[in-house]
Amino acid sequence: MVPYAPKQNPKSENRNAKSPSLRHDQKLEFILRTSARIFAEKSYHSTSMRDISRATNVSLAGLYHYCKSKEELLFLIQDNCFGRVLERLEERLLEVDDPVTKVRIMIENHLSFFAANMAEMKVLSHEAESLRGEMHAHVSTRKDRYAKLTRSILQQVQTQANGQGVDLTVATYALFGMMNWIYNWYDPAGKLKVSDLAHNLTQLFLGGFLAGSLLDAATIKRLPKQTENLSIWRGTTS
Amino acid sequence: MVPYAPKQNPKSENRNAKSPSLRHDQKLEFILRTSARIFAEKSYHSTSMRDISRATNVSLAGLYHYCKSKEELLFLIQDNCFGRVLERLEERLLEVDDPVTKVRIMIENHLSFFAANMAEMKVLSHEAESLRGEMHAHVSTRKDRYAKLTRSILQQVQTQANGQGVDLTVATYALFGMMNWIYNWYDPAGKLKVSDLAHNLTQLFLGGFLAGSLLDAATIKRLPKQTENLSIWRGTTS
Repeated sequence: MVPYAPKQNPKSENRNAKSPSLRHDQKLEFILRTSARIFAEKSYHSTSMRDISRATNVSLAGLYHYCKSKEELLFLIQDNCFGRVLERLEERLLEVDDPVTKVRIMIENHLSFFAANMAEMKVLSHEAESLRGEMHAHVSTRKDRYAKLTRSILQQVQTQANGQGVDLTVATYALFGMMNWIYNWYDPAGKLKVSDLAHNLTQLFLGGFLAGSLLDAATIKRLPKQTENLSIWRGTTS
Repeated sequence: MVPYAPKQNPKSENRNAKSPSLRHDQKLEFILRTSARIFAEKSYHSTSMRDISRATNVSLAGLYHYCKSKEELLFLIQDNCFGRVLERLEERLLEVDDPVTKVRIMIENHLSFFAANMAEMKVLSHEAESLRGEMHAHVSTRKDRYAKLTRSILQQVQTQANGQGVDLTVATYALFGMMNWIYNWYDPAGKLKVSDLAHNLTQLFLGGFLAGSLLDAATIKRLPKQTENLSIWRGTTS
């Protein structure tokens, strides 16, 4: 697949302070940041380019100087986020050998990054399926790489701990679930600091992932099977 | 607060098979189930009553016989889900004393219910803020009651285990996060059965919640503090 290429700023290799290209990049970032906030507030589909024009105080014609479409704005937000969080993790893991330390770093990296970008986090969760074609494929490739890296770290932990316990797929998505859910409840400006949040979630996840087998067998025995119909609707009808 | 009262079917107390009231209720459920599927596919805001009319093959005038507005459809979906999952949990907990068993039941109850109602689960997550006024307040009251019940069970576990470990608020939302995230990845018709999913998530969560303190102190020591700017955007600009 040829990766999707966003509209290029021809002078972007020259980033001196106050240069035209820096001003262009900063303005684009301002537009993206504002768009992420509006998409998070009222959803991507309910947002028009006119809403973004109003919130940024950039004319419609001006907006199209920075991006081809509303879809490209969404693409750039998603691509920037997954690109940055992945790149930062890969850098931080470079000199680390211990798998458990890698998990700690992964959790801290993800939470500190997204606590600083909560609107973007909500947009990533809610608008995962809103991109199409090449843009969707490009973001999916990055996301897959991030998920695979995380899974491989968990596999290393399991191997080191003599491969017992929780299913690796369930563990990987449970970890992303407990971290990504924070956009629903966590206030980065509140009493609980990001470092405390990361510490608690690390303790919870690693504790369960490493120590599941320490639990008394009676504690984790299965519940009796339920066979009732659980759809909230009673059955099909015409 | 006076709870929001959805349009009543005057004969709904009389539910004999094939009675007009049963037919009314079944038709309403069919409309709600179909609406949940469409809201999950294309978002609440992008869905019109005309879309629902087309998908259900019920005329617009017919739809308004069952509900006052699109917002009432969303309300009934959310209210039904939280009502049913909470009621079912309260019933199942009636004769249980052991806090750890209560957690196991809570997880199994939530996962088996939402695995049977995946479209509704996505709608609950994505459209939590789409209701307003009394309808929003009514659903929020139910949701709070469910979250508080869950938190109180976790508190009982912590008390029994001599009150160490993970922050109770973080643990409660981490549990909801790992469970609710399944609408992003889990296929109830796939290889992993709901009972296995529940077993794995129970092991992971309870293991971490109970056994966090068993971990070697070096394993859960904090990472050095990072002070860089983590916003994906470099800074504000006009």
